[in-house]
Amino acid sequence: MRRRTFLTSTVSAGISGSLGASQALAEEWKGRPRSAIPTPALLLDLDAFDGNLRVMAEQCKKTGCGFRPHAKTHKCPEIARRQVAAGALGVCVATVPEAEAMVAAGIRGVLLTSPIMESGKIARMVALAGKEGTVLLALGHARQVERLQDAAAAAKATVDVLVDLDVGDRRTGILPGKPALELARRIQKGKNLRLRGLQAYAGHASHTVGFERRRKVSRQALQPALETRELFAQNKLPAAILSCGSTGTYNIDSELKGVTELQVGSFIFMDVDYRRIGGKSGDVYTDFQPSLTVLTTVVSTTHPDRVSIDAGTKALDTTVPHRGQAKGKPHLSYSPFGDEFGSVTSTKEGKLPAIGERLEFIVPHCDPSANLYDRIYAMRGDRVEGIWPLAARREFHGGT
Amino acid sequence: MRRRTFLTSTVSAGISGSLGASQALAEEWKGRPRSAIPTPALLLDLDAFDGNLRVMAEQCKKTGCGFRPHAKTHKCPEIARRQVAAGALGVCVATVPEAEAMVAAGIRGVLLTSPIMESGKIARMVALAGKEGTVLLALGHARQVERLQDAAAAAKATVDVLVDLDVGDRRTGILPGKPALELARRIQKGKNLRLRGLQAYAGHASHTVGFERRRKVSRQALQPALETRELFAQNKLPAAILSCGSTGTYNIDSELKGVTELQVGSFIFMDVDYRRIGGKSGDVYTDFQPSLTVLTTVVSTTHPDRVSIDAGTKALDTTVPHRGQAKGKPHLSYSPFGDEFGSVTSTKEGKLPAIGERLEFIVPHCDPSANLYDRIYAMRGDRVEGIWPLAARREFHGGT
Repeated sequence: MRRRTFLTSTVSAGISGSLGASQALAEEWKGRPRSAIPTPALLLDLDAFDGNLRVMAEQCKKTGCGFRPHAKTHKCPEIARRQVAAGALGVCVATVPEAEAMVAAGIRGVLLTSPIMESGKIARMVALAGKEGTVLLALGHARQVERLQDAAAAAKATVDVLVDLDVGDRRTGILPGKPALELARRIQKGKNLRLRGLQAYAGHASHTVGFERRRKVSRQALQPALETRELFAQNKLPAAILSCGSTGTYNIDSELKGVTELQVGSFIFMDVDYRRIGGKSGDVYTDFQPSLTVLTTVVSTTHPDRVSIDAGTKALDTTVPHRGQAKGKPHLSYSPFGDEFGSVTSTKEGKLPAIGERLEFIVPHCDPSANLYDRIYAMRGDRVEGIWPLAARREFHGGT
Repeated sequence: MRRRTFLTSTVSAGISGSLGASQALAEEWKGRPRSAIPTPALLLDLDAFDGNLRVMAEQCKKTGCGFRPHAKTHKCPEIARRQVAAGALGVCVATVPEAEAMVAAGIRGVLLTSPIMESGKIARMVALAGKEGTVLLALGHARQVERLQDAAAAAKATVDVLVDLDVGDRRTGILPGKPALELARRIQKGKNLRLRGLQAYAGHASHTVGFERRRKVSRQALQPALETRELFAQNKLPAAILSCGSTGTYNIDSELKGVTELQVGSFIFMDVDYRRIGGKSGDVYTDFQPSLTVLTTVVSTTHPDRVSIDAGTKALDTTVPHRGQAKGKPHLSYSPFGDEFGSVTSTKEGKLPAIGERLEFIVPHCDPSANLYDRIYAMRGDRVEGIWPLAARREFHGGT
C-alpha cells in the first residue's frame, strides 16, 4: 500500500468508526429528557438556533449580500449543513483540520480565513482544492503566495485565493491599497492560483459597544477595503468577492455597497459577551437569541454562602471577563472555582440551589466554549433531538 | 441485541476505530523531527517528564508515602501507565469519563476525587467497580452515600469509598470532625460500600507563594484531617487511606505522619503558574522541570512592533493571569490575540521572529492546556517518539 493511501484509509477508519458510534449514540438519546443528560454538557436550543439562522438569512436576502458563516464558532458539520441549507455560500474555517472536517462532511465553498505558512498544511489545503469551488484561501504575505503556488503546481491543482487585508485589527493580512495591489499581482502571476477578491475582517469593530459607535468604527475600517477593491478593478484584477463582517456588524456591513458576503460566526449561538454590545434599539443585543448553554449539577453544599457545581474552567470558558449567566435564575452568580468546579452565590433575596439541582448557563464566549466539548446535545424544548459531534475540533493529520 | 450490549459494542467500535487510527498515526510519525509537526501542537519533553516522575517516586520512596497522581492533569492513558510503572498506586481522576478511559486502559486503583450526584454517573462508576480495587469514590454528602449504596445494591457490587473532607478550600467535601464521623458511619452502614479512609485536598495551599508560608498553610489545613483520621480509628472506622497533597506541597505533606498518599498532578508537566510559587531554595520552583509546551508558527508580520502566531485562546489556556513563556527566547512576550491568534512582542534589545519561524511556549497552566488538545507529541530531543491520545478528554457515554 502506498503511504498516502495507507494514511488516508487509517484516518478515515478512525473517523468512520467514531461516526458509527456517534450515530448509535444519537439514536439511543433521541427523545430523552434534559434531566437525563450527564453534566457538564453543551446544549443547543434548536428553536433559538433556527430563529437566529432565519434572521441572518433574511437580512442577507433583503440586502442582496451573501453569507458564509464562520465554522470556527461551532466546529460542527451538522450545523454547517443547516447553514448551507438556509442559503449560506459555504462556511469559513480558521484551521486546516476544520477545513478537512467540513469538506469531508460534503460542504463546498470552504474559506480558510487564517494565513498558513507550513508546507505540510499548504499541501493539505491543495489536496482539498482538487475540485473547483471546494476551498478558498486568504493570503496576506508574498511568501504565502509563493508557497501555495509551488504546492499547487506540484499537485497540478488550481486554488482559489483572496487577498487578506488588515483593516485595523492588526492581527493578520496585508495593508490595504498599494501593498495589497502588489500582492494581488503576485497571485495573478501564479499559474495555479486564481484570484477571487478580498477578505477584510474588522475584529475591532465587532464588539464595539453601542450601535452607532459600532457602525462608525466598521465603516471606517471597511472604507480602505472598498477602495482596494476598486483599485483591483481599475487594474483589471478580479475582485468578485469582498468578505467581511461579524455578528456585531451584520446589519451594518451587509448594507454597504461593495461588500459581497458576511463571515458571521457567533449569531447562531450568541453569548454573554456579545449581548452586552447593544443593538439598534437597546443596551442588550437582542437581534439573536442565546441558544448555547452549559448544563451543570450542584455537587457540594457544605457552606451556607455558596454551592459548588461541576463546571470549572474546563467547562465554561474564561477567555472574556464576563461569566456564564444562569438561565431563568438572575439572582445567581457564577465564578470559576478551579478547573473542575464553579462557585455559585445568590443575592440576599434569592435562594441557593440544593444538592443535585441542575443549573444551565448561557456561555460567556461561544467559540472557546464549544471548543471545550466533543459533542452538542441538540434540544427541541426539553427533549434531545440529536447529538451532534463537533468533529472539526479534532486535530486531523494529513500525514505530511 | 440487548440495549446495554448494543451500546457497549458501538461505543467500543468507535474507541477501537480511533485507537487503530492513532496507532497508525504514531507509527507514521515516529522519528520525525519537530520541524515537521503541524502547529499549534502540544509537545512533551520526555527527558524532563521522566526526570519529574523520578523526583516524585524518590521522594515517596524516601518518606514511605504512596502517590496516586492526578490524571485530570494529562487525561492520557499512556502517561498513567508510565506513572504506575514508576510506582504509583493508581491514578486520581476528576470525572467519570476519565475514570472510564483509565480503567479501559488497564489502570487499577482509580480514585474519583470529585463528588457526583447524578444517578447515571453513579451507575457508571458502580459498573467500573465490578472488580475489587478498580475504583474508589470520594463522598462528601449523605445524599451521595445513599445514592451510591442504592446503585451498588442494585448491581450487587461493592464499592470502595473515602470521606471527602473540606480542609479549607471550601470547594467540596464535608467538614472535618463530627460531620465527617457521622458521614463515615452512614457509609459503614451501607452494605455495599467499603469505607477505606479520607481525602483532604487543600487547594488553597498548593499555590501559596514561598516555601515556608506554603508549609504553614498546608500543615494548618491537614491538622483537622489527621485528627479526623484518629477520630475514625477511635470509633473503629477504617481509615487506611489519607489522600492529600499537591505538586506544591509534595515535599511537605509526604513528610507528615498519617498522610498515606499524595494526589499530585502538575509535577509531570509543570507550568508558568507553578514555577512562580518558589521552592525550598529560591524564587523559582525548580523541583520539577517544564516538560509541556505548545509549538506555534509566526503567520503574520505586517507590523513592525509585533508578529502574530497561530496560537490564541484555543491553543494556550487563559485560566491564569500568567502567559506562556517562549522557550529559549526570554526577550519575547506573548499575549492572546483572540481565539485563533497570539501577539508576540520583543524587548527593545531583542528581535522579532520572522514569518514562518516557530516558537515554543511553556504552558501557562498545564491542566486546562492539555484539555485543549486531542493528542500529545512525545519528543525525545528533537524527534517524535510517540503520539499519545489524550483519550480521557472525550465525553464517553455509558448510555444511562
